[in-house]
Amino acid sequence: MKIPDSIKKFAEVFSEIPGIGPRQAIRLAFYFINQGIGFNEKVIRAVLSIKDIKLCSQCFNIHQNKTNPRPEDNLCEICADPKRDKNTIAIVEKETDLLSIENTSKFKGKYLILGDLKKSGVLDIQQKLRISSLKSFVKKQNYLFEEIIIAVNPTTYGDLNADIIAKELKPFAKKISRLGKGIPTGGEIEFADKETLSEAIERRK
Amino acid sequence: MKIPDSIKKFAEVFSEIPGIGPRQAIRLAFYFINQGIGFNEKVIRAVLSIKDIKLCSQCFNIHQNKTNPRPEDNLCEICADPKRDKNTIAIVEKETDLLSIENTSKFKGKYLILGDLKKSGVLDIQQKLRISSLKSFVKKQNYLFEEIIIAVNPTTYGDLNADIIAKELKPFAKKISRLGKGIPTGGEIEFADKETLSEAIERRK
Repeated sequence: MKIPDSIKKFAEVFSEIPGIGPRQAIRLAFYFINQGIGFNEKVIRAVLSIKDIKLCSQCFNIHQNKTNPRPEDNLCEICADPKRDKNTIAIVEKETDLLSIENTSKFKGKYLILGDLKKSGVLDIQQKLRISSLKSFVKKQNYLFEEIIIAVNPTTYGDLNADIIAKELKPFAKKISRLGKGIPTGGEIEFADKETLSEAIERRK
Repeated sequence: MKIPDSIKKFAEVFSEIPGIGPRQAIRLAFYFINQGIGFNEKVIRAVLSIKDIKLCSQCFNIHQNKTNPRPEDNLCEICADPKRDKNTIAIVEKETDLLSIENTSKFKGKYLILGDLKKSGVLDIQQKLRISSLKSFVKKQNYLFEEIIIAVNPTTYGDLNADIIAKELKPFAKKISRLGKGIPTGGEIEFADKETLSEAIERRK
């Protein structure tokens, strides 16, 4: 039995999505076929419904401003909010990280979303462009940022990328910081790895 | 920052897909937005392209017969193939299991696709209907199947379901079997679990 071309094509498109491998993509095609036309139409409507969501020209967060004749109107609600501290910038990988930080209500500054960091520890073209846009913002304003918080995951490649970003942005901020490392709330000392526990001891207060 | 309703709706639809949780569904929405309209259109085209794939009225495998005025024409290429042995039926969970078995070229019979088995070990309505359709097939033909192979995974709930299916179908076949269990080719005796090794000893030849 040959797999129909339309299923192969479907699997090809869906396996471009991160987290979906070629085998899962084939299984997905069969799932869609078994669900029938009603489900497929629901998926199409869902994909169509997000097409008027745009990216903020400043921080690359999502926004839904319907009319944006001037670039300065193409801002997300955080960048457009005059109450947010424009001198403190948190650099995050993805929108879901921004949402998690927003949920704490502990951060009143603005953001820059970089996009998923590569495990190679090398910034891609889009990430370089986004960092450049932050630099030109500083140059235009003619003052340095108070603080840039590099809020990327404390993983090996997160650390690697954070060092590169810190080096790039050092001339543009009075202070460059990263999120605190240590034992997570609810965690147990006994099960903390050596690295985490060392950080927790150094950062005690 | 509030998540736009369209993203919430998108995540709701996509988290219905098995293997995609609510968090991954939100990340998917952001991924789609970042990919832009070109990617979204590609996804929509892929979903639309599989809409003329139908399910075989006999074994519930997929097929692409364009015209099917009579139910007997609504058959997949395996069920429509007069060279396949109609007296031997393999009962599989999903299309991908069927494809794997077809790839061996060792099975010349026909199939019945049941759909994903529940971990509870209880057959759902659709599965009961599909088994009933197999029974009525036997009643109509007025002879028993030579063999029904219950080709479900040898997991705990696979075994549980296999027992139920075997009991249901016993009056309709001369022989009910399951796939052989043992050490997989390339596997090592040292690392085989006790259950597998016991089966391998019992089924030696």
